[in-house]
Amino acid sequence: MNIIDIIENKKNRKELSNEEIEYFVTNYTSGKIPDYQAAALIMAICINGMTQDEILSLTNSMAFSGEVLDLSDISDNIVDKHSTGGVGDKITLIVMPIIASLGIPVAKMSGRGLGITGGTADKLESIPGYNVNLSVEEFKQNIKDIGISLITQTLNLAPADKKIYSLRDTIGCTNSMPLIASSIMSKKIASGANSIVLDVTCGSGAFMKDRESAKRLAKMMNLIGKWAKRKTVCVLTNMDEPLGYSVGNTLEVIEAVNALKGKMAKDVKDVVVKLCVQMMILSGNYSNSYNENKKKVLDVIESGKAFEKFKQLVKKQGGDISYIEDLGKFEKAPIITPVLSDEEGYVEKLDAGKVGKAGLELGIGRKQKDDVIDYRVGLIFDKKIGDKVEKDEVLAYVHSNNPEKAEECVEKIKQAYKIGNKKISKKNIIEII
Amino acid sequence: MNIIDIIENKKNRKELSNEEIEYFVTNYTSGKIPDYQAAALIMAICINGMTQDEILSLTNSMAFSGEVLDLSDISDNIVDKHSTGGVGDKITLIVMPIIASLGIPVAKMSGRGLGITGGTADKLESIPGYNVNLSVEEFKQNIKDIGISLITQTLNLAPADKKIYSLRDTIGCTNSMPLIASSIMSKKIASGANSIVLDVTCGSGAFMKDRESAKRLAKMMNLIGKWAKRKTVCVLTNMDEPLGYSVGNTLEVIEAVNALKGKMAKDVKDVVVKLCVQMMILSGNYSNSYNENKKKVLDVIESGKAFEKFKQLVKKQGGDISYIEDLGKFEKAPIITPVLSDEEGYVEKLDAGKVGKAGLELGIGRKQKDDVIDYRVGLIFDKKIGDKVEKDEVLAYVHSNNPEKAEECVEKIKQAYKIGNKKISKKNIIEII
Repeated sequence: MNIIDIIENKKNRKELSNEEIEYFVTNYTSGKIPDYQAAALIMAICINGMTQDEILSLTNSMAFSGEVLDLSDISDNIVDKHSTGGVGDKITLIVMPIIASLGIPVAKMSGRGLGITGGTADKLESIPGYNVNLSVEEFKQNIKDIGISLITQTLNLAPADKKIYSLRDTIGCTNSMPLIASSIMSKKIASGANSIVLDVTCGSGAFMKDRESAKRLAKMMNLIGKWAKRKTVCVLTNMDEPLGYSVGNTLEVIEAVNALKGKMAKDVKDVVVKLCVQMMILSGNYSNSYNENKKKVLDVIESGKAFEKFKQLVKKQGGDISYIEDLGKFEKAPIITPVLSDEEGYVEKLDAGKVGKAGLELGIGRKQKDDVIDYRVGLIFDKKIGDKVEKDEVLAYVHSNNPEKAEECVEKIKQAYKIGNKKISKKNIIEII
Repeated sequence: MNIIDIIENKKNRKELSNEEIEYFVTNYTSGKIPDYQAAALIMAICINGMTQDEILSLTNSMAFSGEVLDLSDISDNIVDKHSTGGVGDKITLIVMPIIASLGIPVAKMSGRGLGITGGTADKLESIPGYNVNLSVEEFKQNIKDIGISLITQTLNLAPADKKIYSLRDTIGCTNSMPLIASSIMSKKIASGANSIVLDVTCGSGAFMKDRESAKRLAKMMNLIGKWAKRKTVCVLTNMDEPLGYSVGNTLEVIEAVNALKGKMAKDVKDVVVKLCVQMMILSGNYSNSYNENKKKVLDVIESGKAFEKFKQLVKKQGGDISYIEDLGKFEKAPIITPVLSDEEGYVEKLDAGKVGKAGLELGIGRKQKDDVIDYRVGLIFDKKIGDKVEKDEVLAYVHSNNPEKAEECVEKIKQAYKIGNKKISKKNIIEII
């Protein structure tokens, strides 16, 4: 077997065998196959697609390309949650403490942001003292002690995926369905989850721009889950506009804390409740009734149990909970500039993709892997789709660290808005697959 | 402009602009764009193709990516000849001395072999002493002195093509029509020819396996030639079986010398005459009459002028002409093994592709760039398509340096033959385009 033949087969639309895919994954991970040959193969996959069997082989090879976490000493049914990424997506910070306060163990490893998609690990690090880099032993011990731990990926899990993912980013191959499905599912399989709830985002701020491609991705991940004997449910959510009212690391932590204390934007609440209910069902410890489970979710928020669990988590991982108790303590960006509406009407559009790109320029995320993040900067939205707006009324605020960047960002955010005369209503949850 | 956008555009079947192609070629040549991004773009081109405008842009960018040879002090109509490559293709060694003896200046730079395709530079080096590495000044001076020089590419001509060509070889992208056309034509434009006769090979031993794709390639090269104001003619020739009766470096030099002395295999003669006639027409110093020109070609062979020109060339470039005068002086391979026919009948097939691969294993060419060639090894064919053969009669001889390799090669050559009961006649020249 040799890599040139494998590349040529994919180029010529031949189905790759399990052995060919395994050969590529193993030898690329070990460095025997150079980046340029991998890039050629990835591009051929991106253009010519993959069959179901090929996707299953690729997922499997990547999942077992490194260590595989064993969490069976904690529970035989760890429920994981994953989002395909979006702008303003702080859902993990809200859902996981709720789930832990409902008695379901939470063992969650989150990534860092890359491109316009934020990362939960970066958001957690914006809490002074919070340590995302625990050892596996500490991670497991915390879950045993308080039922929850949120860390970043420290183990050598699915290293093949890590390498292929970075490469895809540099060769214009991020939005390939087979590659996204196998990337997500290989990581989930390697991280030891028994059940997986997937938040499949769909819209201008997501990889999947339209509903049809999001559905195809969801169906494929369900199929992979079934094949790998992991209970899997996909919740398709809307990512046409940013989720909630904030984008940025500190700003999103503040929004998440407020949400855990009961002050939740409508779209965030819809997604949080839907994901929690699905996770409760998959845990096996709750009924299948949507309303019954929803009530329990709202109960742990109202009773303060969910917020307490979040404080416990922050404290356990070294974070300074005085910030969580007094959100005013968080350092603010030095320059806060309002974005005013040029006209009167209704917000018909608030393009999440454009918002994400504008946020990237502010320093919310990384354009390249080594870029330094400014936790303080970000955006606050006063007006979202469907809202009435007057001329010169504030649409949003830009939190920045540089006057020039602020000015540029104001312009970009204005362009992300479309003010018209129709009152549009947005569906936050699209479908469960 | 950035390379990721350019890659994505090609992936999404958008036509690349002249600026985008220029950006890629310039920055890849200078090393600013890494191999893996170039590989992704090349694969996308390979799968999605290129429009005519894109091919012209690519050719132009590559042609002017380095030095461009100026031969106007020698002649304002230098006629070049190029073959798209084949197995047993010693045509340059025969055609060029004929052309020079007809008073048309020959300034030819030839490549080395890579893959199953042999290279004229390697064949010339199998003549003891022959120096293919002349400076441009020596090259030009030789042409002024004796009307001919055959060297390898010493100048930094079309470095972009060199880099892209090597990359293509390692990522399964050798047989893309737009990439072949632009590669050949960029080199020809950079090497200073005013008129170009292209031998477009077609069949199992060539890049173009079928007549239709060979025709498309020929038409595209004609179009590029017209656009670059170079008179261009393509001669489509058959490469289903090896050309002539020998494959291998020394063995082909011997065949070429015999051809120049009048002993020429039918298929070699057909191609030689056709190419010479076309070159004579393009030179502007001869009539357009095929028969008139053909007679002149046969005359310089019969009179010994062509052979004398070859000896002059070899001597001028440091070669020992005693080998040319006494072919028996060439060192022979230590092991010569006959390939016997298992059955009686007619040769219906002698697969040039399989012969090429078998020859590669013998050491005729290089599997990787640094492989060392054994000039002595090769193949001699006693029977070719259309020939009658008895059971146990010799089909071919394997010249090798190792008993195991010899045995393996005998098997491979047997498999390259198909003996049947039909007497097939092969058309050596397919078409002039």
